[in-house]
Amino acid sequence: MTTEPLIAIDAMGGDEGVSVMIAGAALARQRHPNFRFLLVGDKNEIKSTLNKYPNLIDNCEILHTNDIVSSDDKVSRDLLRRSKRTSMGSAIDAVKSGKASAAVSAGNTGALLAIASFALRSMPRIDRPALAALLPTMKDSDVVMLDLGANTECDARNLVQFAVMGAAYSRVIYGVEKPSVKLLNIGTEEIKGKDSVREASVYLTDANNLPLSFLGYTEADKINSGDVDVIVCDGYSGNIALKAVEGAARFVTDLLKRAFTSSIRSKFGFLVSRPATELLRHHLDPNNHNGAVFMGLNGVIVKSHGSANQKGVANAIEVAARLVEDKITDRIAEDIKSIDGLPNLGDNEAVKDREENSK
Amino acid sequence: MTTEPLIAIDAMGGDEGVSVMIAGAALARQRHPNFRFLLVGDKNEIKSTLNKYPNLIDNCEILHTNDIVSSDDKVSRDLLRRSKRTSMGSAIDAVKSGKASAAVSAGNTGALLAIASFALRSMPRIDRPALAALLPTMKDSDVVMLDLGANTECDARNLVQFAVMGAAYSRVIYGVEKPSVKLLNIGTEEIKGKDSVREASVYLTDANNLPLSFLGYTEADKINSGDVDVIVCDGYSGNIALKAVEGAARFVTDLLKRAFTSSIRSKFGFLVSRPATELLRHHLDPNNHNGAVFMGLNGVIVKSHGSANQKGVANAIEVAARLVEDKITDRIAEDIKSIDGLPNLGDNEAVKDREENSK
Repeated sequence: MTTEPLIAIDAMGGDEGVSVMIAGAALARQRHPNFRFLLVGDKNEIKSTLNKYPNLIDNCEILHTNDIVSSDDKVSRDLLRRSKRTSMGSAIDAVKSGKASAAVSAGNTGALLAIASFALRSMPRIDRPALAALLPTMKDSDVVMLDLGANTECDARNLVQFAVMGAAYSRVIYGVEKPSVKLLNIGTEEIKGKDSVREASVYLTDANNLPLSFLGYTEADKINSGDVDVIVCDGYSGNIALKAVEGAARFVTDLLKRAFTSSIRSKFGFLVSRPATELLRHHLDPNNHNGAVFMGLNGVIVKSHGSANQKGVANAIEVAARLVEDKITDRIAEDIKSIDGLPNLGDNEAVKDREENSK
Repeated sequence: MTTEPLIAIDAMGGDEGVSVMIAGAALARQRHPNFRFLLVGDKNEIKSTLNKYPNLIDNCEILHTNDIVSSDDKVSRDLLRRSKRTSMGSAIDAVKSGKASAAVSAGNTGALLAIASFALRSMPRIDRPALAALLPTMKDSDVVMLDLGANTECDARNLVQFAVMGAAYSRVIYGVEKPSVKLLNIGTEEIKGKDSVREASVYLTDANNLPLSFLGYTEADKINSGDVDVIVCDGYSGNIALKAVEGAARFVTDLLKRAFTSSIRSKFGFLVSRPATELLRHHLDPNNHNGAVFMGLNGVIVKSHGSANQKGVANAIEVAARLVEDKITDRIAEDIKSIDGLPNLGDNEAVKDREENSK
């Protein structure tokens, strides 16, 4: 018996497939010599790529699959049926059977969520899983943000559960006992926003037995400010906010690139200040923040970005390993018990009553 | 009789109040010697500030008011009742009575929307006004984005109306006959997103008599890419996307500042490349994009950012003047007639039927 975690890797997912997934595993193993892998996918492709990484060969198993989930595959009963034959589905099944401790895939996000939810099911007291990620801030620590797109519509009950899960994630990473949590909204006054957000705010303000410290609303311009540990939102808003941040960061750096190459003088200035701008580039490189987690499932499933490079894949694998080592699933199961009095939360009638009474 | 537009300025709104609003008017008049102003607010404060701007004195009237709308004022019947005594409400009333052609305020956004909607009413065939702004892109032209926060929830019917209004705005600014329009969504596939967005997409795809060219969905990371003229969304998503973009741009420039001041070498490099980074700063300065428009009301109302400086206020005034000169209200009234077959749009029963049938 071994205590080292075995991480299942969907070797076929992502823009580059086997080559970058295995290169990422090799890099992760270089940094963490206790990591072991279950490489899932076409055994011939995997074997021929493995030859380049001698540090991996003795520390991985190969699980052969014939089929793959493509980026165009729509979520359907048919997809769920054939998923067991795919590299993505088999990696998830390895988590379900207990053979692997976690699975990492760079494949189709919608399919990954559907297959993982179908196979692993939500944890007790969690209605729906949420996609969480660590985003860079002006401070030393990252902020946990969820949901980033698993659920288009969320009720107050979902948001409260996300708050507890996000706090558990932040606690694992930074060890703070009661991570601070804010709800994303379009203003900071109590009356702003949607029913679901206001209802969740009332609950989180009143609940004093939760393992988190609720600080009210945050607006989207403060996502990277680092003044809170966890930001909670519905998956539609969260996805829009996340992509807007990514797009704006790229916009500014592209403008900067254009500015620096606009004249010989500015090119020279750029060369001189390069060590400084390299630090900036490192801080903003999405590969250094790669690895979004589906929280609330009976198992650890990490989504690597489809375009992540070797470093990005290694980062996603490290996220998975960290969550396994710190028993995130057990922690959430424990924390979520502290939610009580929830039955009416997210009940539309209750929300309507409240709105009526406040008129 | 004069043909020069008279623009009502709420002199009391914004973080700095009279001083920056009048300085902005003076700058706008310097650039456009035909601009005339109705300065609304405390006459003593206005008069003493006016002394600093001799170019304004002969080209403005003062409308004295005693009361102001504060940034803490909540929208209520009481606020609407007392609004006629406030500088904001009186500036709007000057538009209603026809004395002024447009009003510019840097005050409380929620109050401005409520008072303007109450006094001016929505245009025929427009159910709700929307807040629109021009955002910078990688290309030479700005993108029109709406709604940025006037409506927390929007149905498909609202979104289609926003598309027509946004296209009219883009046409005024750039003269393109059929501006391209995309709906903001969390993916580009047809099946993604909310019912309202999908329903609006179906309508806009089928409608071939609209004065716009509908190009499907865009994700929030493409807001600044400049590959479309108009981006349409509900006010909740739009506000989150806008603020996320603002916050991320500030985040990157703050990191850059930190990088450039981290060593003597990088400080030197920064000084050398300063002309280039100044261009970047100019491109990103929110004051150069100040002036959000409430579209769909019977009158032109422009919101200046509360923290805008003199240059920002002048920009908001120029936006208002431009929309007046190009008769935006008449254009929208004309364009909106091309929407027909709309009765079922936004009708929840119709959406449900459609969802049922697609199962």
